[in-house]
Amino acid sequence: MEEYIEMVKSFHGHLAPGMVLGGFMVDLAMRHLPDGGLYDALCETPKCLPDAIQLLTPCTVGNGWLKIVNLGRFALTMYEKETGKGVRVFVDPARLGPWPEVRSWFFKLKPKAEQDLGLVVRQIQEAGDHFCGIESVRLRLEFLERRRRKAFSVCPLCQESFPADDGTICLACQGQAPYLLSEVREGD
Amino acid sequence: MEEYIEMVKSFHGHLAPGMVLGGFMVDLAMRHLPDGGLYDALCETPKCLPDAIQLLTPCTVGNGWLKIVNLGRFALTMYEKETGKGVRVFVDPARLGPWPEVRSWFFKLKPKAEQDLGLVVRQIQEAGDHFCGIESVRLRLEFLERRRRKAFSVCPLCQESFPADDGTICLACQGQAPYLLSEVREGD
Repeated sequence: MEEYIEMVKSFHGHLAPGMVLGGFMVDLAMRHLPDGGLYDALCETPKCLPDAIQLLTPCTVGNGWLKIVNLGRFALTMYEKETGKGVRVFVDPARLGPWPEVRSWFFKLKPKAEQDLGLVVRQIQEAGDHFCGIESVRLRLEFLERRRRKAFSVCPLCQESFPADDGTICLACQGQAPYLLSEVREGD
Repeated sequence: MEEYIEMVKSFHGHLAPGMVLGGFMVDLAMRHLPDGGLYDALCETPKCLPDAIQLLTPCTVGNGWLKIVNLGRFALTMYEKETGKGVRVFVDPARLGPWPEVRSWFFKLKPKAEQDLGLVVRQIQEAGDHFCGIESVRLRLEFLERRRRKAFSVCPLCQESFPADDGTICLACQGQAPYLLSEVREGD
């Protein structure tokens, strides 16, 4: 636990309650997986939980083993890559009753300035995975199919490489770039 | 560099060429940022590059400072949180000519089994950030606005908490869940 807390501070930047809760959730999921399988992770929120998964499992966003599907639920699934069979761990609001400070933080009942985050963290550490439910799930087939990129092209507009399947110009030049303007390129 | 390579092996799992290239790209971007600002990161691909950003900057997916907008380009932007002004670092295919093995890897010209990934990594290490272009960018305003969640509800179907703005039931119960079936919950 102490080692994990140091990892959280270094990687995530601060000891957020969601990271402490997330640590218990990942641990609970891992303990329910059969040994020896190859597991991918799915996270139902982009908040905190992805970092707990990245710190405690081999799954990261960049290596492709962690996918984030934002359903707004504080939950994660670890599943066997080929079959899609796995376990899902979620927070069960019905079990938060005895820990009012955690409940208040979880449902954002108070403004951040009025929350005692240290107390929230301590209550989560006391409770361990008591708030969490676990269930068996199986991923839908279309979610397991890996989309392998076949070929890359050079975009005639931005001159950068992009997946040929995206069209004759890249998605950014098709209007999806989040930039207002790009100034003169250095070195041109 | 040696320290980074150890971090890559531990976090990402293996020394992928994209992680070595990504390390140079993040370093190049950081060196072009004014001191003292607060910077967020945007990554235009989910492949490898997000992990280089997470290892070398304070920005992670879980702390909300790294966003992935999949445009299919191997590029990243570091930008000042408030103004959206920043620098974008990208791979310039025109500069890959002298390194045929890197070019072949980058454009996926050969099947993976025929690639000499050790040679690709060595050539990237030799070239440093030579493949990379850098440009000034500014993010569109709508991308900078932080969507703060206001309230959470308990979903009457799954009994889990979800952002009240999502509707009367959660997005998962609205049909977005990637699961085939969920079996009996433990403890119920």
